[in-house]
Amino acid sequence: MARDTSTALPVRLDRASPTPLAVQLADALRARAASGQLRSGDRLPSTRALAARLRVSRTVAAAAYEQLHAEGWIAGRHGSGTYVTTTPPGALPARPPRSRRETSNDNVIDLTLGSPWADGLDRAAWRRAWRASADVVPLLRPQRTGLPEFRTTVAEHLLRHRGLVAAEDSVLATSGTSAAAGELAAAGLFGDGATVAVEEPGYQRAVGALRACGIRVLPAPVDDGGLIPDAVPAGVRAVYCSPSHQYPLGGRMIASRRVALVERARAEGMLVIEDDYDGELRYDVAPLPLLAALAPDVVVHLGTTSKILTPTLGIGWMVAPPSVGSAVLAHRERTGTNPAAAGQRVLVELARNGDLARHLRKLRRELAARRALLVDGLTEAGVRVLGDDAGAHVVVPLPSAEAERAVLAAAARRGIWLDGLRRHHAGKPGRYGVAVGYTSCARPTLRAALGTLVSLFQGYSTHPV
Amino acid sequence: MARDTSTALPVRLDRASPTPLAVQLADALRARAASGQLRSGDRLPSTRALAARLRVSRTVAAAAYEQLHAEGWIAGRHGSGTYVTTTPPGALPARPPRSRRETSNDNVIDLTLGSPWADGLDRAAWRRAWRASADVVPLLRPQRTGLPEFRTTVAEHLLRHRGLVAAEDSVLATSGTSAAAGELAAAGLFGDGATVAVEEPGYQRAVGALRACGIRVLPAPVDDGGLIPDAVPAGVRAVYCSPSHQYPLGGRMIASRRVALVERARAEGMLVIEDDYDGELRYDVAPLPLLAALAPDVVVHLGTTSKILTPTLGIGWMVAPPSVGSAVLAHRERTGTNPAAAGQRVLVELARNGDLARHLRKLRRELAARRALLVDGLTEAGVRVLGDDAGAHVVVPLPSAEAERAVLAAAARRGIWLDGLRRHHAGKPGRYGVAVGYTSCARPTLRAALGTLVSLFQGYSTHPV
Repeated sequence: MARDTSTALPVRLDRASPTPLAVQLADALRARAASGQLRSGDRLPSTRALAARLRVSRTVAAAAYEQLHAEGWIAGRHGSGTYVTTTPPGALPARPPRSRRETSNDNVIDLTLGSPWADGLDRAAWRRAWRASADVVPLLRPQRTGLPEFRTTVAEHLLRHRGLVAAEDSVLATSGTSAAAGELAAAGLFGDGATVAVEEPGYQRAVGALRACGIRVLPAPVDDGGLIPDAVPAGVRAVYCSPSHQYPLGGRMIASRRVALVERARAEGMLVIEDDYDGELRYDVAPLPLLAALAPDVVVHLGTTSKILTPTLGIGWMVAPPSVGSAVLAHRERTGTNPAAAGQRVLVELARNGDLARHLRKLRRELAARRALLVDGLTEAGVRVLGDDAGAHVVVPLPSAEAERAVLAAAARRGIWLDGLRRHHAGKPGRYGVAVGYTSCARPTLRAALGTLVSLFQGYSTHPV
Repeated sequence: MARDTSTALPVRLDRASPTPLAVQLADALRARAASGQLRSGDRLPSTRALAARLRVSRTVAAAAYEQLHAEGWIAGRHGSGTYVTTTPPGALPARPPRSRRETSNDNVIDLTLGSPWADGLDRAAWRRAWRASADVVPLLRPQRTGLPEFRTTVAEHLLRHRGLVAAEDSVLATSGTSAAAGELAAAGLFGDGATVAVEEPGYQRAVGALRACGIRVLPAPVDDGGLIPDAVPAGVRAVYCSPSHQYPLGGRMIASRRVALVERARAEGMLVIEDDYDGELRYDVAPLPLLAALAPDVVVHLGTTSKILTPTLGIGWMVAPPSVGSAVLAHRERTGTNPAAAGQRVLVELARNGDLARHLRKLRRELAARRALLVDGLTEAGVRVLGDDAGAHVVVPLPSAEAERAVLAAAARRGIWLDGLRRHHAGKPGRYGVAVGYTSCARPTLRAALGTLVSLFQGYSTHPV
């Protein structure tokens, strides 16, 4: 299956440059992956072959691979070859966001994760919010806490849609969920070189944001009942989890574990970072108390509008204990970094006239219907599906890495893009399967794709009878 | 002068908590500084006195002070006492941006640095831009490069107002200048624990952003002709400078130094970070070539709208060599961090119909007039003024730290807020003086304040006759 990478590989190394050859080589390969010349799944030559080809020592090639592996660009150094693992991050040449859809043929069905249901956003409401924002007074100084009216709006949103009583003073604007995780680390809350546990499988951008700040990330095991508090490694300064709808497996953290987690956090001086992933998207199950509601003294609660509305706003929020809030504000003051105010303003206006609440109702209704269609279709055909009745994707577990790879490849051949669980692991994958997202795919298309999906999964994933 | 800090100091330490007492103490003091209970200039007790008061060991008190010193909250540990140095970074309780003006008496004249001339922003044009932005299509995926139309707008702006020919592909949106400096470090461009030189005195938020990423910052000496290339410490991976209008001294880097700097950068594999501070605000002096125009292969050019428009937009730009751009995009992909799109869109609309160009013309005219008024008034009275005919502030050099402190204090007593050079140093101050900013102060007020300013400076700062 591996594409021929030979055209992407002639790398020009400057032996006169003071930049080490290994750094030059890693830079060149990273640039090719970033620009799409190397793509996810491409197999790279062995360090020995690459070294021979570029006439450098094998140590140089190995050091470059080591670096790219640490950064998550490649995987599988030992034994079976080295593969590019990362989706190209939007090449440097301008690429409009819809290019993937526009340039690919119309038969492609995108069931990957991460997009909001942007088609469902009422354009009239969106336009109204921007127009109303036009009266915003241009700030003279950056607003490090976030706009006061944004903090009020978020406090009301959390009360209404998440049952969380949060004082406006405890709400800070952020630039999104993984940005906030990085900010907590950069603010020095965990100390230099500290360890933080993140759910495994879990949200790899949070892992990336923590690692970029020098944090050592350890895996926190999860099962269908969410994070397992007793299995969080000892000595970590914080644990990052998604109790509302575990990303990517889709379970929610059971109530007894919620209590156990915050008790352990209190006893051991750990901070709990609650990523309220898909928190607004629960369908017919009763809500469980947020960790931030159980223990506002040790929990930092994170939310975002990127999934319920659109990444265009570029905003999120943090509800934090006072000492954490102070440290984050001090960090922003020292570094001159602030959450952008423009998007905050648009959200305030969307909320003010009820459009946000209307959108959330519509979103829940539509995604619940898509979910039911998909889950019913799969389970009726005997395909086992993981995850609570919530959120924007389901997971079909598979027995092995080979099965996962085979299903992804076969799906791609039939014009269906899916997400494997492998890329949601920080270390060696321990769970195999495929996530099926349904935000970008309307019901008729989803219905039409069902037969193909069932045929892909049958033989691999079946209900225990 | 030191305020009594005893009411702010009863700190409750939890001896049963696993959090070390020194960390608890530092957190508590930081929180008081962040909330304004402790203020810049407040004198703290000695470690011995504090330890006795809180019944902890002196080691605990010393470790807490050490931490706060490293973070820039306090200064002067040895000898003459410990002082709070940082202006409170917007306390956690909501504080509207104009609170300082609203709550203080009307006679206060704010001549500190850092605000844009927001009063001068035509509200009709601002409103038009927001309304036109209402048609923006909500993104499905975050745009890691920045919106395509934003990159085009910036390329046109740089060509028209800065004489820089930059391909759209080389332009990336950022969240502002110091945020971009931090991003370059976080993207691993300098390596772990690398050293980067920053102008001294210089832009301390860039210093803060670099340090927050584990970079060791070394001082790069400057004089009235800007950064001195030969004096940049050997072995640094990058040098951060503001050649258009050195911040805060106000000189521009002379042409021969520009050439020498980029040649040295090429020879030693250094990256040059060109902070185009006040680049759009030159009055009657001819422009010098941007470093990015001289050497696009080793220069990262940074710009922002925070000073020429308003921090509300929360956006800036980076023009970077391809390998740097790729590394930044790879970092954004790994960490899920992106420049916010909403503000980008508003800038595009402001530029599209000519309002941005009109605003810049008006801004230059008004600030040039204010500058002339201030510089003429001061020099006629024999007060020496530093800096090129550009930008939004002038610097009056003073002979000593004592003189600086005395002038700032005397000005404050007469209702005038000024900025001292001390706070623009990363290390021990080597230049003394006062910066007088004029963005927040209209001509009649400035004229009225001139007499007081002259009387403050006379006796300290005079022209050599």
